[in-house]
Amino acid sequence: MNPNPTPAGLQLRSLVKPDGQLEISLATVPTPEPAHDEVVVRIEATPINPSDFNFMFGAADLSTIKRSGTDANPVITAQIPQRAMKALAGRVGQSMPVGNEGAGVVIAAGESERALMGKTVAVLGGAMYAQYRCVKATECLVLPDDATPAEGASCFVNPLTALGMVETMRREGHKALVHTAAASNLGQMLNRICIKDGIALVNIVRKPEQAALLRSLGAAYVCDSSSPTFVEDLTDALAATGATLAFDATGGGKLAGQILTCMEAALNRNAKEYNRYGSTTHKQVYLYGSLDTTPTEFTRAFGMAWGMGGWLVFPYLQRLGPHAAQALRQRVVAELKTTFASGYSKEISLVEALRPEEIAVYAQRATSTKYLINPSKG
Amino acid sequence: MNPNPTPAGLQLRSLVKPDGQLEISLATVPTPEPAHDEVVVRIEATPINPSDFNFMFGAADLSTIKRSGTDANPVITAQIPQRAMKALAGRVGQSMPVGNEGAGVVIAAGESERALMGKTVAVLGGAMYAQYRCVKATECLVLPDDATPAEGASCFVNPLTALGMVETMRREGHKALVHTAAASNLGQMLNRICIKDGIALVNIVRKPEQAALLRSLGAAYVCDSSSPTFVEDLTDALAATGATLAFDATGGGKLAGQILTCMEAALNRNAKEYNRYGSTTHKQVYLYGSLDTTPTEFTRAFGMAWGMGGWLVFPYLQRLGPHAAQALRQRVVAELKTTFASGYSKEISLVEALRPEEIAVYAQRATSTKYLINPSKG
Repeated sequence: MNPNPTPAGLQLRSLVKPDGQLEISLATVPTPEPAHDEVVVRIEATPINPSDFNFMFGAADLSTIKRSGTDANPVITAQIPQRAMKALAGRVGQSMPVGNEGAGVVIAAGESERALMGKTVAVLGGAMYAQYRCVKATECLVLPDDATPAEGASCFVNPLTALGMVETMRREGHKALVHTAAASNLGQMLNRICIKDGIALVNIVRKPEQAALLRSLGAAYVCDSSSPTFVEDLTDALAATGATLAFDATGGGKLAGQILTCMEAALNRNAKEYNRYGSTTHKQVYLYGSLDTTPTEFTRAFGMAWGMGGWLVFPYLQRLGPHAAQALRQRVVAELKTTFASGYSKEISLVEALRPEEIAVYAQRATSTKYLINPSKG
Repeated sequence: MNPNPTPAGLQLRSLVKPDGQLEISLATVPTPEPAHDEVVVRIEATPINPSDFNFMFGAADLSTIKRSGTDANPVITAQIPQRAMKALAGRVGQSMPVGNEGAGVVIAAGESERALMGKTVAVLGGAMYAQYRCVKATECLVLPDDATPAEGASCFVNPLTALGMVETMRREGHKALVHTAAASNLGQMLNRICIKDGIALVNIVRKPEQAALLRSLGAAYVCDSSSPTFVEDLTDALAATGATLAFDATGGGKLAGQILTCMEAALNRNAKEYNRYGSTTHKQVYLYGSLDTTPTEFTRAFGMAWGMGGWLVFPYLQRLGPHAAQALRQRVVAELKTTFASGYSKEISLVEALRPEEIAVYAQRATSTKYLINPSKG
């Protein structure tokens, strides 16, 4: 038992009502006393990842956002289009906490975990958009003594996703990688991993300035989808690297199919004889995000040896098994301030996260508008 | 050595010219003397499968078909749309033989293979739209004494495809199957296999009369995509069978995505709690044909545990290994006249195969218009 009871704290909640209204609010929730194997973490840094944003706003039409409540206790409402409600049926009427990952300082600990008191830890526990979180000690990743919560806030989702992609490449027998939305925080991280590990990476971006940024960060292959020579550029890069595996963050539109088509063209450049069913080399694109929410569309112009599919990092790590997953986590801690460093454009409080003018910025889910929430900020 | 030299014979050829003109003609080709491990087969029955048709006509616009040449030696020409030429680049200028599979009688044999003389055999050897084929004896499947070439003509493509689908289901851990274009010869065969082996099969067809046909053949689950209740019917059938694997012959359009969406809905019927990433059960659709040549399009409304991909029977059998593949071939011979019986609407000669009025029929690639070529027919 701790001498002082742990304080109650604010927690961000997202509620989808049966009539399609989304409501985001701040609830004051008690903080449980930690059990013997638990700790209470005062959360000081938690990022707004695209997956958090999507969950928090439940596909609501952002042009319908309204703010009500008080300055200290604001409420955001917005309307969810009818067509999106089917996919949300399972959460209607449940006020849900938000925030996959974050970091902070241990302020209370169960009797087996006293050694963690005062340590800065990162947590992948859900409900991180909160001032306090009571979690199992085993869910905490203890950060190096000189690391701040802000430096450890994005320890899990992006680093493990990037490492999981490289691991997938190795285990599924590919020798190089393609990544879309490659100028993102995640993309820059993957670029650093691939440079460090000597893996050829084809970076796809959609603006010249993103291409320039990646080149300045040492990327050898960068293809800009807004360029009139995109298809040729991509095919050249695929032929040079031999990449037959792509991870696509956009999900919708024609990009995934274009990548498969260019992979096939690259493979056929060296083909000795005509094969009516196309190249026999398997080409794979995993859709791990949905930045483009339009339908996915492709012309089947890439033979028969191809696959497309969903990919999520945590189920993937589960399939890898605890030892392999633990090795990846240890690498993240060891290279926290280099390979796995994340950047944010602004730090905001929970109350500020509910300001329409801030939402308008972080809703862009762009590299240059990535926000960090500090729930302990006044 | 055989006492009489083997005769020359007609062979159907398909040529894509650089200017996009398709030319189908009959060449007279010499028949090689069989080497010690080879036999010469007089081909008497060879089906026009969709894959043969697609290869023979090279995506040509069938409304541009013209016939020239003579009655005995006709030539068919047609124009290939410019957009389709890229995929055909590898075969431009090469006069290519056609016909995946067929059956006939051994009329000459190398010294090690004399025992095959006079036997009726099925062959998967390519170039089967020909009067004579010299092949390795190991490529021949000896048919039962009471089987005709017509009965053995379709021993490989459809039977092994249907068996390969069931094998894929077992090895990838699914417990039931979905099949589209299910009233096809292949679909009826798969229906017979599944009834015999006690496997739940969800048959998707696009007309009420096809649904009635399959029901009359004992199919328990038949969903008609032209019905206004198709989505509900399919979801019900998927919930009843637990099918999470589909083989789609159409390839294009929205059907593959609809199947995944209905699988997800069926899985979520029994879900205990909301999972923001959807069901964690893997759902898979293999596109093994392209009856619908329009782009494939889907809305990603089926969680993240899904896959779509190309599937081809012979590369699949190669991955299975020779023993497993041989076991499937033996089952085909054992059940040739029952489970694996094929039906044809008409038997035509090679010359008749080049008549525009016959092409107009077999180009429909429908169950009721399936043709058998008898190259030995006068």
